[in-house]
Amino acid sequence: MVAWEKHYAGRARRMAASEIRELLKLLDQPDLISFAGGIPDPALFPTEAIAAAHRRVLGDPARAAAALQYSASEGYRPLRDWIAGYMTGLGIACGGEHILITSGAQQALDFIAKLFVAPGDRVLLARPTYLGALQALGAYEPVYDDLPRRGDNRRAARRGAKRRALGYVMPDFQNPTGASLSREEREELLAAAAALELPLIEDAAYEALRYEGEGLPALAALEAARAGGIDAGRVLYCGTFSKTVAPGFRLGWVAAPLEVIRRLVLVKQASDLHSASLGQMVMHEVVQEVLPAALVPIRRCYRARRDAMLAALAREMPPGVQWTTPQGGMFLWLTLPPAIDTAALLARAIAEARVAFVPGRAFHADGSGGNTLRLNFTLADEARIADGVGRLGALLRRLPEMVGAA
Amino acid sequence: MVAWEKHYAGRARRMAASEIRELLKLLDQPDLISFAGGIPDPALFPTEAIAAAHRRVLGDPARAAAALQYSASEGYRPLRDWIAGYMTGLGIACGGEHILITSGAQQALDFIAKLFVAPGDRVLLARPTYLGALQALGAYEPVYDDLPRRGDNRRAARRGAKRRALGYVMPDFQNPTGASLSREEREELLAAAAALELPLIEDAAYEALRYEGEGLPALAALEAARAGGIDAGRVLYCGTFSKTVAPGFRLGWVAAPLEVIRRLVLVKQASDLHSASLGQMVMHEVVQEVLPAALVPIRRCYRARRDAMLAALAREMPPGVQWTTPQGGMFLWLTLPPAIDTAALLARAIAEARVAFVPGRAFHADGSGGNTLRLNFTLADEARIADGVGRLGALLRRLPEMVGAA
Repeated sequence: MVAWEKHYAGRARRMAASEIRELLKLLDQPDLISFAGGIPDPALFPTEAIAAAHRRVLGDPARAAAALQYSASEGYRPLRDWIAGYMTGLGIACGGEHILITSGAQQALDFIAKLFVAPGDRVLLARPTYLGALQALGAYEPVYDDLPRRGDNRRAARRGAKRRALGYVMPDFQNPTGASLSREEREELLAAAAALELPLIEDAAYEALRYEGEGLPALAALEAARAGGIDAGRVLYCGTFSKTVAPGFRLGWVAAPLEVIRRLVLVKQASDLHSASLGQMVMHEVVQEVLPAALVPIRRCYRARRDAMLAALAREMPPGVQWTTPQGGMFLWLTLPPAIDTAALLARAIAEARVAFVPGRAFHADGSGGNTLRLNFTLADEARIADGVGRLGALLRRLPEMVGAA
Repeated sequence: MVAWEKHYAGRARRMAASEIRELLKLLDQPDLISFAGGIPDPALFPTEAIAAAHRRVLGDPARAAAALQYSASEGYRPLRDWIAGYMTGLGIACGGEHILITSGAQQALDFIAKLFVAPGDRVLLARPTYLGALQALGAYEPVYDDLPRRGDNRRAARRGAKRRALGYVMPDFQNPTGASLSREEREELLAAAAALELPLIEDAAYEALRYEGEGLPALAALEAARAGGIDAGRVLYCGTFSKTVAPGFRLGWVAAPLEVIRRLVLVKQASDLHSASLGQMVMHEVVQEVLPAALVPIRRCYRARRDAMLAALAREMPPGVQWTTPQGGMFLWLTLPPAIDTAALLARAIAEARVAFVPGRAFHADGSGGNTLRLNFTLADEARIADGVGRLGALLRRLPEMVGAA
């Protein structure tokens, strides 16, 4: 037998399979209510429009030939142009040349990390933060530090022995907490990034999923206004069709200064040449047909489920449990008494309550957050949400650690 | 303006855009005959079967929901199982669990490099070699060395100060030369890899495109026979549907020991979560329907074009030009007199002869091969091949460097 472990590069040690992931793989059981994944409801996918677009593209010989052939690493130009129009509508004036099509926003994170992060570099991010960002970034062996806050330039400079490669932030309905940055926090973050000369990833995965409250400008929009256009800014905006159309396409994008896009195109070419040609052509047809109208039922549905989850939590949770009230997105975040370890709780929740969630430690680069957990509210319907939160509440009330926790 | 260059990690310096790539981007002109890309003829794509499979999958609500949803990083299990059957037919007995679906074989190369190669590691490969492998591997900053040959263990050990991470080889109809390894060369390479404890990438991109001669066993098949099964071997086999079905899907695979697949799944998850779900489900339908029968017209067509190119070369090339006679694949390889630089020749070929090719230096990690070039014979039909080779021959005969070169 080959002793494979000794052949792996150091970065592979960052990629150990977690026991939690293994546990969550077992969720495909009908009697188990999963609040674990960040999974959209497939009933909301525009399946008819997608099927019709496939028929149109594959039914036209010239378009079919292009759809099945190799294509440009940058992506399908009409789709890039459509995205540039969408971005311009968000206040980030740009052209198709500022857009790289990626296989989901996840791949955008991987490629940006590959371009910017060397081993030992500092990457600044929120705690907790998106698990997939920790996975994408972690492969390039950074050390993590907190995002800069107001008045913290001096402190950052003092500790600046290591190169600061990147900041990473999800300003709207953050995965995992559901929290959003206020306008003031956005301005402060951009000012701090400018002072630190820090390139900043804006992960806008949930941007379109606002259920209440006033929309706030994207970091990239504030930055473009401040710096005088996308090419003068330092924000690398990552968007996705996974939440607004369907995730199975694996289509997302980076909007960034032309100079960065040119580099990322080389990274894309070296990694997988380009994203699937047919999927890009179909997506271009579908977004023109269904967006933004398709967002109305999506928002209505997920808002009702969020409300159902908030109501069930208020009803079912014992004293000592706190949770966030997100204005959008797919998740809310529970904090339990410090004595409770949610990784151990997950095993019992699956076995005894037939309910699943993601333990909070998965979202912390430093392994903290052991008494927190993430609940998804977009996949299960209201009845199952009420049922599942009830079962979770009953389990928590049975725990000795909860007694007197309030 | 942000000075982006200083923000990039060292590996980004490996990814400079080449002038040749820029020149070859300009090829979309009808009066220009391109022998540059490794592009299959879209007339051979099973477009009807692909369209019908899309209709079936998207017409069934349960399958459509799965096709548009997130799915497993490992890939669609029925497709993995089909590939395992195909691999078993090649003499590499394995199950679906030994297969990772990747976005083309290019992504397989990227992920294997990401798992195995640390900066400064030695990667052993042929000269010339596949340009895309140099791009995928180069991002992880190896140094390159030649593949081991018979009796060369001692020399390799003496120079073994740097860790040997990987070998990379394309045994059948190699890109760019069209050459194949003999059975003896395969055995020797495996013996040398075993002596060096070297994991070996077998890039089988063109394996199915044999036009004449006896098929030879894959390295992975010889290794499985020698070691006692795929899990005991050291070969990481990379396959693709780009040459047998259509490249626009971006679907390929790695077949490897289970222990390596488990690691590569984590790399896949961190990079893009999974390949497009719908494309995998459609591919599973299509391969069952069209393979292996669809290979008959593909081989017939490409064989005729190879023959046309060989005949045109014999007719049109001036003395002093040599070329390979591949038994399959997509390319043949020209060697011109040492005084000729084919990068400079390409600019003149495009401008004066309206013909394009890829200069040989692109396939050499050390920048050698300046008097060589690669010709593709699968995209242009016989008449255009005769025309294009005639124009290239006429240009060569006008060059002063050719005079008396024979």
